[in-house]
Amino acid sequence: MKLYNYFRSSASFRVRIALELKGLPYDYVPVHLVKGEHKQDKYAAVSTSGLVPTLETDGGERLGQSLAIIEYLDETHPQPPLLPSEATERAHVRALAQLIACEIHPLNNLRVLKYLVHELKVEEEAKNTWYRHWVRSGLELFERELTRLPSGTYCFGDTPTLADCCLVPQIFNGQRFKVDFSGLPRTMAAFDACMGLDAFQKAQPSNCPDNEG
Amino acid sequence: MKLYNYFRSSASFRVRIALELKGLPYDYVPVHLVKGEHKQDKYAAVSTSGLVPTLETDGGERLGQSLAIIEYLDETHPQPPLLPSEATERAHVRALAQLIACEIHPLNNLRVLKYLVHELKVEEEAKNTWYRHWVRSGLELFERELTRLPSGTYCFGDTPTLADCCLVPQIFNGQRFKVDFSGLPRTMAAFDACMGLDAFQKAQPSNCPDNEG
Repeated sequence: MKLYNYFRSSASFRVRIALELKGLPYDYVPVHLVKGEHKQDKYAAVSTSGLVPTLETDGGERLGQSLAIIEYLDETHPQPPLLPSEATERAHVRALAQLIACEIHPLNNLRVLKYLVHELKVEEEAKNTWYRHWVRSGLELFERELTRLPSGTYCFGDTPTLADCCLVPQIFNGQRFKVDFSGLPRTMAAFDACMGLDAFQKAQPSNCPDNEG
Repeated sequence: MKLYNYFRSSASFRVRIALELKGLPYDYVPVHLVKGEHKQDKYAAVSTSGLVPTLETDGGERLGQSLAIIEYLDETHPQPPLLPSEATERAHVRALAQLIACEIHPLNNLRVLKYLVHELKVEEEAKNTWYRHWVRSGLELFERELTRLPSGTYCFGDTPTLADCCLVPQIFNGQRFKVDFSGLPRTMAAFDACMGLDAFQKAQPSNCPDNEG
């Protein structure tokens, strides 16, 4: 398999974690978002949407959208599972993942921040406040959701799931923008537990071949 | 089952479509977002996140996040299926759904529009331009994705899927803000095909008990 991705992209990071948790080898193909490589012809031939990541399967199918890719990996390589086996538990894990992927991260990606600055003429500090507002308020919702679910080592239970694949990149992202993580004990305990695992360490931006330090 | 939802909420509309496609009866519990009922104690006792929709199962479990709810319905009531059976095809359908749920809709929901107006002091016209920009550019990506996939009556194949559950509410939303839908033939053909079905008609905002006309 080939993963077209960018070291600092949260959505890319989610998929790298899933690949590492499952012990699946893959070719790392960097697409430099800040240099605009996702908008150039070379990547257009790979991805019609121009978004990263794209997973190219061994059969040559090209799949987009990080959560769809992770579900695909979980269906085609079931061990270790990234979703529980019971339907309501699966729903809880997917909902946690979507709290991050649909409520937090879309407001903070590069093209949205660019629109704020270039089209709406938002100042640097107001842009950073926007960023921190959505991450902080979103993580507060996440914490409340964790609190109503059974406690465990990770976001849900005692093995990492799709929810952890989303949480960890979001925390990394928030750290770059100096988000306040206080008062989020369950969330940060899950994050710390994840970072104690080799899979999360190997997948992190600083260990990517295109990392710029 | 009980669905806590709001007639005009896109995420609520997605779940109503899925319930109708599967022919599942449910109690409709309105939560008036514009009046702020989602932030009041009565709903806080139902939903820790305060987001709509929430599905309360017959077993009393409360599930959030529309895509997670629809996957739950598809797992517990498999007929008619809302996802194909083959793994790469499932990934394509999920990716289409997520193009809307993760790339378009989060930028246009009520709390984000409020933040633009109240915190960033964005004028009405610039807010509407923001809205139309993300819907239009997102639907252009959606159209390109449809074009690379096999043609069919709906977004993917000849039966409605999770992708159609997301597309139709997004088009409704865009219509309210007068988004330009020209040059999106595959997308709009799928929309029209959906609207020819009873399930989509029954689920639409104008047929909801809390519809205000």
